Amino acid sequence: MPELRKDPILGRWVIISVERGKRPTDFVSPSKKKRGGFCPFCPGNEYTTPPEITAIREDGSALNEKGWTLRVMPNKFPALQVGGELNKKGEGIYDKMNGVGGHEVIVETPDHNLTLSTISPEAFEDALNAYHLRLKELKNDKNIKYVLIFKNEGEAAGASLEHSHTQLISLPIVPRTVKDEIKGAMDHHEHRERCLFCDIVHQELDDGRRVVLEADDYIAISPFAPRAPFETWILPKNHESAFAPHNGSFKDLTKVFQTVLKQIDSILDAPPYNFVIHTSPLDIEENEYYHWHIEIMPKLTKIAGFEWGSGFYINPTPPEEAAKFLREAKL
Amino acid sequence: MPELRKDPILGRWVIISVERGKRPTDFVSPSKKKRGGFCPFCPGNEYTTPPEITAIREDGSALNEKGWTLRVMPNKFPALQVGGELNKKGEGIYDKMNGVGGHEVIVETPDHNLTLSTISPEAFEDALNAYHLRLKELKNDKNIKYVLIFKNEGEAAGASLEHSHTQLISLPIVPRTVKDEIKGAMDHHEHRERCLFCDIVHQELDDGRRVVLEADDYIAISPFAPRAPFETWILPKNHESAFAPHNGSFKDLTKVFQTVLKQIDSILDAPPYNFVIHTSPLDIEENEYYHWHIEIMPKLTKIAGFEWGSGFYINPTPPEEAAKFLREAKL
Repeated sequence: MPELRKDPILGRWVIISVERGKRPTDFVSPSKKKRGGFCPFCPGNEYTTPPEITAIREDGSALNEKGWTLRVMPNKFPALQVGGELNKKGEGIYDKMNGVGGHEVIVETPDHNLTLSTISPEAFEDALNAYHLRLKELKNDKNIKYVLIFKNEGEAAGASLEHSHTQLISLPIVPRTVKDEIKGAMDHHEHRERCLFCDIVHQELDDGRRVVLEADDYIAISPFAPRAPFETWILPKNHESAFAPHNGSFKDLTKVFQTVLKQIDSILDAPPYNFVIHTSPLDIEENEYYHWHIEIMPKLTKIAGFEWGSGFYINPTPPEEAAKFLREAKL
Repeated sequence: MPELRKDPILGRWVIISVERGKRPTDFVSPSKKKRGGFCPFCPGNEYTTPPEITAIREDGSALNEKGWTLRVMPNKFPALQVGGELNKKGEGIYDKMNGVGGHEVIVETPDHNLTLSTISPEAFEDALNAYHLRLKELKNDKNIKYVLIFKNEGEAAGASLEHSHTQLISLPIVPRTVKDEIKGAMDHHEHRERCLFCDIVHQELDDGRRVVLEADDYIAISPFAPRAPFETWILPKNHESAFAPHNGSFKDLTKVFQTVLKQIDSILDAPPYNFVIHTSPLDIEENEYYHWHIEIMPKLTKIAGFEWGSGFYINPTPPEEAAKFLREAKL
């Protein structure tokens, strides 16, 4: 069973994932890691992954065999384990609990060579629907407080397999970054009776310099204080506290989200990137202060000593310039 | 002039380092970057760096020429700029100020092929003295609130030059991570009238499983909730709030610090790593709640979407095992 441990100084939690237990010699340098070759996410290799949780399949195709266009399954090397008790414990001044939660993989396409930027809009919309479906279902587990959906695209962004996939980790506690965002948003709401993110959307629309893309219901911006060059956020233009289809569909979001990924691919030569969906914790999905959004970070610079030692980021590209490059990208 | 901008949600600051202003095409992939060749930190090439701030020199050698064993100079591409006014400003809901501060480089050895692990103990002690000297001198600048000393060793840890060097960034605000550590420490002190870090030292000494190295005045430990495999902290055993020589000398610290770096090199094959010195902010150097320390992070895993989206870390190596491997390293 993995273990959750809390740093007593910062209150930050870590997952000690003992099942993966690494000896010093297991840390081969990334350049020595094998790429290519056998792919567990390609059709025909379904038997090498844990049994699927759900899938979109051709009529008549069998579970855990080929014939799917999207497939969701547990991660073979999960960071957290489904089921069991949290068993919260102290150890002198330290706190820990069992690593109860879940770790899933959403494979958005059977085609090894496509990415979220290059799959069909229909497949992209299916992926968003799958994220939402899993989120809804995981809400029934009383131990789960938060579901984090994220993607590591490309080796430098932390992907250990080449074949496009999104990950989902369900957690027994609300992660620190989300907690801090909620705190900032609640403070703002307390003083102004308004949602901070709605205020950001309005100011960005008025200003215009950092707007990457505007659609009917969503906006993509280069945030005012981006941690990394070409960091991009996507937000619903009107207040929505939890990630969900807008008017029953993800069609509009698909258009904005996939276009932004295409813009990034175009001007940065399909860089490695991460994205994360920040939504309200499961027990407060409806609220007036928090506003769900997507954060996309192309991986162009390294997080080095200064950044992790200070929580301060050095960004060589002003967001006003980044937004202009993205807006003018040739698709 | 670089600009400091504050994220309105998290209160996190970023440095928009416009002087380095990067266009999309400037982000060449790291593997395409040239290594080797001309080194601005090697003796004879002093004319290619900004004039030195201080140096340890052979008698009779001239400033900014060879004949030095340690050399401190401004960074040629500084993240922050010395001098000028902060000029704090709002922009709607956003906050910003001029990027006033400093960015220096400490080259600890003239030998291109040595590292902090392999230089002589005397040279190591000189480096610690140089850190402390700069810290003391920067205290006189009224705009400087914090001095962060850190090292990026190896390309994967963010070093853009191969030749061993430490960096120092002086900041007009206390960085978030240090602020959060201080907050945690103050909370603990308020409830228990004791220093949290002193309590950690005592518990670790009693427990023993996470102790990497113990000397008269310092202890090296694998922290209870490490963000990364083989993360190691060095702390003074008795309460000291600010980084300074112990009983007038850095001899003991040199022994512990350099031995830990040698242990890491030995078991992990001289991996890339970062270290950072966390000390009290300049205006509260003497206090009862904060305890200066060094955090060392070998760069063995990638910070991916989950980590930056959640502030939660997944660590495959329990600190009890990491400490054992380090203790048993053959030096």
